[in-house]
Amino acid sequence: MANPEQLETLKKIATQIRYHILTMSTQAGSGHPTSSLSGVELMAGLLFGGIFRYDLNHPKQPNNDRLIFSKGHASPLFYGLWAAAGKLTEAELMTYRHFGSPLEGHPTPVFPLVEAATGSLGQGLSIGVGQALNAKYLDKLPYMTYVFLGDSEMAEGSQWEALQLAAHYGLDNLVGVLDVNRLGQRGETMYGWNLMAYEKRVAAFGWETILIDGHSFPEVLSAYQQAILVADKPTMIIARTVKGKGVSFLENQEGWHGKTLDPEQLARALAELGPVDRSLRGTVLQPEDLKTAELPPQPAAPPSYPPDKPVATRKAYGNALRRLYPEFPRMVVLDAEVSNSTYAEILQEAHPERFFEMYIAEQNMVGVALGLQCRGKLPFVSTFAAFFSRAYDQIRMSQYSDANLKFCGSHAGVSIGEDGPSQMGLEDLAMFRAILGSVVIYPCDAVSTEHLVAAAARHRGIVYLRTTRMATPILYGPEEQFTIGGCKVLRHSPQDAVTVIGAGITVFEALKAYEELQQQGFSIRVIDLYSVKPVDERTLKEAAAATRAMVTVEDHYPEGGLGDAVRAALADTPIPVYSLAVHERPKSGKPEELLDYEGISHGAIIKKVQDLLHQFRLAAG
Amino acid sequence: MANPEQLETLKKIATQIRYHILTMSTQAGSGHPTSSLSGVELMAGLLFGGIFRYDLNHPKQPNNDRLIFSKGHASPLFYGLWAAAGKLTEAELMTYRHFGSPLEGHPTPVFPLVEAATGSLGQGLSIGVGQALNAKYLDKLPYMTYVFLGDSEMAEGSQWEALQLAAHYGLDNLVGVLDVNRLGQRGETMYGWNLMAYEKRVAAFGWETILIDGHSFPEVLSAYQQAILVADKPTMIIARTVKGKGVSFLENQEGWHGKTLDPEQLARALAELGPVDRSLRGTVLQPEDLKTAELPPQPAAPPSYPPDKPVATRKAYGNALRRLYPEFPRMVVLDAEVSNSTYAEILQEAHPERFFEMYIAEQNMVGVALGLQCRGKLPFVSTFAAFFSRAYDQIRMSQYSDANLKFCGSHAGVSIGEDGPSQMGLEDLAMFRAILGSVVIYPCDAVSTEHLVAAAARHRGIVYLRTTRMATPILYGPEEQFTIGGCKVLRHSPQDAVTVIGAGITVFEALKAYEELQQQGFSIRVIDLYSVKPVDERTLKEAAAATRAMVTVEDHYPEGGLGDAVRAALADTPIPVYSLAVHERPKSGKPEELLDYEGISHGAIIKKVQDLLHQFRLAAG
Repeated sequence: MANPEQLETLKKIATQIRYHILTMSTQAGSGHPTSSLSGVELMAGLLFGGIFRYDLNHPKQPNNDRLIFSKGHASPLFYGLWAAAGKLTEAELMTYRHFGSPLEGHPTPVFPLVEAATGSLGQGLSIGVGQALNAKYLDKLPYMTYVFLGDSEMAEGSQWEALQLAAHYGLDNLVGVLDVNRLGQRGETMYGWNLMAYEKRVAAFGWETILIDGHSFPEVLSAYQQAILVADKPTMIIARTVKGKGVSFLENQEGWHGKTLDPEQLARALAELGPVDRSLRGTVLQPEDLKTAELPPQPAAPPSYPPDKPVATRKAYGNALRRLYPEFPRMVVLDAEVSNSTYAEILQEAHPERFFEMYIAEQNMVGVALGLQCRGKLPFVSTFAAFFSRAYDQIRMSQYSDANLKFCGSHAGVSIGEDGPSQMGLEDLAMFRAILGSVVIYPCDAVSTEHLVAAAARHRGIVYLRTTRMATPILYGPEEQFTIGGCKVLRHSPQDAVTVIGAGITVFEALKAYEELQQQGFSIRVIDLYSVKPVDERTLKEAAAATRAMVTVEDHYPEGGLGDAVRAALADTPIPVYSLAVHERPKSGKPEELLDYEGISHGAIIKKVQDLLHQFRLAAG
Repeated sequence: MANPEQLETLKKIATQIRYHILTMSTQAGSGHPTSSLSGVELMAGLLFGGIFRYDLNHPKQPNNDRLIFSKGHASPLFYGLWAAAGKLTEAELMTYRHFGSPLEGHPTPVFPLVEAATGSLGQGLSIGVGQALNAKYLDKLPYMTYVFLGDSEMAEGSQWEALQLAAHYGLDNLVGVLDVNRLGQRGETMYGWNLMAYEKRVAAFGWETILIDGHSFPEVLSAYQQAILVADKPTMIIARTVKGKGVSFLENQEGWHGKTLDPEQLARALAELGPVDRSLRGTVLQPEDLKTAELPPQPAAPPSYPPDKPVATRKAYGNALRRLYPEFPRMVVLDAEVSNSTYAEILQEAHPERFFEMYIAEQNMVGVALGLQCRGKLPFVSTFAAFFSRAYDQIRMSQYSDANLKFCGSHAGVSIGEDGPSQMGLEDLAMFRAILGSVVIYPCDAVSTEHLVAAAARHRGIVYLRTTRMATPILYGPEEQFTIGGCKVLRHSPQDAVTVIGAGITVFEALKAYEELQQQGFSIRVIDLYSVKPVDERTLKEAAAATRAMVTVEDHYPEGGLGDAVRAALADTPIPVYSLAVHERPKSGKPEELLDYEGISHGAIIKKVQDLLHQFRLAAG
């Protein structure tokens, strides 16, 4: 229990933080002061009440406790806390939301004390689960992870994915802090101040629950002290709070979400706060200086495939993970209950301690991966390509955390066959290409897959790798080189009239078309564009200069994939680029039937090339 | 209670359905017989046990009970049921998973008794919530909605979104049927046969729960009879079942998910079934022939905006909904707790009975909309553009249900300013363009927004409308026409050297650039490409023929948006198409600062045009 003097200090710090919240948001003219005011005691108690252990001078200390603001719009509270800890000056606070300031409207790691970008609600708990999984199962360090949650965001299903998984893995090093201030953006939340509604649900999901008055420091401190002692399950502190707490005309009022005070209102509000000791600094406990011994990287054996035996690229992905783990000992593999389809199970079987089953909950899976990479791990995350659409918001947000994440989507395109459209990844290239700075890779054979998984592991950033369900022939020798941003010109001659560009399954259709056209006396250039982003502009331009038309062929919808990528690369090159892509609603059927139906088979390529050759002859008179 | 004779008949029907499941999946060579076998009694009891009321000859009867197979991979069971009802012949069953058969691998409405396509797990309950909401609040009909759920898919957060919302709206006409067969795709589920784990969670979410042995017809029938009587809340029947039930070597075995029997195994399995009465037909009760009187459409008043007063397009969206409701009396509006930002609240204030608050749970919101449109409603669904990424899987799946859905994403692009990247829709055009047959609209002013909301309402299919946070000038007169697939050439002259194409906020940047360039003595053509998909190819080609280069300018990442759309339209037109798009990681700041920073402001356009003019001069020697 805190003594009266400590409590007095905490109250003064709370007042100072309220002062910061109000002044920084008013100067910015935008932001969420009322959502910040409700959480002041919860967060000040955590940081300065002898709970949180953090080396203020070394944010990357592996044994620091972790704090994630899932309700990212309470950023004024977050920055106010660190000001009270002495890590931000008042002058810095006054840059809040200004262009170029690290103190963004919603926290991003541009401010180094931010673990991961938040602001899209319902994502922080998953990130916390990743950090806590790391502590308990990988680094085996005693640090605690705290996630500050809003009540509105508990409506997001992703929260319940995170809750169930945290309980499943017994994460007693994870504490959620639920700020039940009753009011959402446009009125009351579904449950208002019915704390029992949250208590029932969270307890049913296997968590310890502690209900408190979130403005009482003794209750807040006692709750954290209890939470730390809970064994074998995570704890949720469910706190009744008042939105706008501390300012009479803001408290529990509708219509104040995301609104700031004008200067006159600010003056009134500050008068209500009473004396503010702006020089007071809170004390954050120092963590034990612990770290985990890391395995030294060992060179991986080269991949080896008999040249005459087809192998699915999804299987090569699994093989590559197992082969490469010694070289990348920070690797962790996550899968959404389809590891026997994505072949992530190959790694799991070899190194079960590096694999986490995420069950069918893709949003949480991506959030957990983000949390793991915050702690230096190298997550490979797999499910069907189609089902990454479930986690697009988490993927989108991870770019703002400078995330180092590798995604592998299996079962790409109509070539999966009989299972039908629900299982076909047909928007995934569009989805991942639209992420800023992402890498999108789509290998056609096992050898290139193996090399490109290695390239993905080496590359720092978001990489998406697309794999194919069916076995495909081995196209490349073991020594062939593959680089992010590269491509392979598979067939070329001075007589090529048309360049055909495929990736993945369509590379083999293009090669079949080549053979048949050769027999008819026509030459085409064939390119394996395994790196869809970045794209090998130079090679494409060379092909454009050497031939009269380009034809892209992709097992993906027409928008956002190979066709768009090639046209963007050739934006100022005056060559026509025709796109063969999935353009009829897909259905069940045999892969070959579907490739034909969608006009992306070798037959369709041959027809397109013949049409073009006919056009060229007509044009030549 | 069923009498012994009825029970005997039900058992015979169950045997027949098991026969169908095994034979149809073996002939297909793929599919999920074991996941189907576990649900036979649950579904046969529902359809043929005097519970389900359905006019077999009129699937669109408004008062039919509704059945949604959320575990869509149990499609052999679904088709087997309808065969037992006399709606499919054995010959038709033998087309299962063949190319062109309506009996697809996962159910789609190509088979008319399917309510909505399923197969991406965790989506059916939301669709059911939509159907039940419709019955209770809109059509006010007594039909019941049943959703058949798998245990693995309960890990999806979307399920819990649907559960909470169904309880919130007191949907006592909704019954979930949870088939707890213990085994997922690659092993045991998180809770195995711990039915209490499901019971606790579902009850905590406000549902009635009934635990049964899912293979006992008396228990199954009694559960449905109880469920129908529950008032003010939905009911979940939680059934312990055995995966592969009825075939000794399949029962409760790992390694049989998604696997079919070979002919020898099939023969053994059929022998175990014993005599099969293949001619037996189950009886489905007839529903009361009820329908709801519909309001006749009334012509809407034309929109009216003072020409000199800027209005945000998001506000015009809200105005349009209110204005157009009389003309489209099937309109229903859903919003994810941001209706005061998207301005869906304008419709809500005028017609509260046509508005449903969906809270911050976007996945369920889209699923509910799909369910509502199954019942003939015209849903308009809104949230921030960025947060539709949360529901991309549901949006993707809705295309396979021929969905008539209108999505409105507000707060597009960096021009939202200080809130920062988490709130900026920057991938939304890519996301929605990649949906087959979708329409993507991005108006720049209030007048065009109003007309395009009307066009969206008239269009049958998936339409995405992107709106802007800040107020923009009124550009168009009230009589101006806007069509899906159209665009507006805003400035043109015979001297135009370059065509600049904007949409939304960048139209005004292009117009400012035009003015400044005019003063410098240069003419550019300016196009408002408000229809991003389909795109006005003819007008773009005319501009391409009349000018020497095209420059697209968009408040979106470079991939998948305006630039890609224009290049695709001009794929065989030899004109360079340069793309100005968001290419630096966005941050907080003033809108103008951010437009400049990203190189999509009028200044950036002027610079690009000047560079091009300089190039042209150099080229001309």
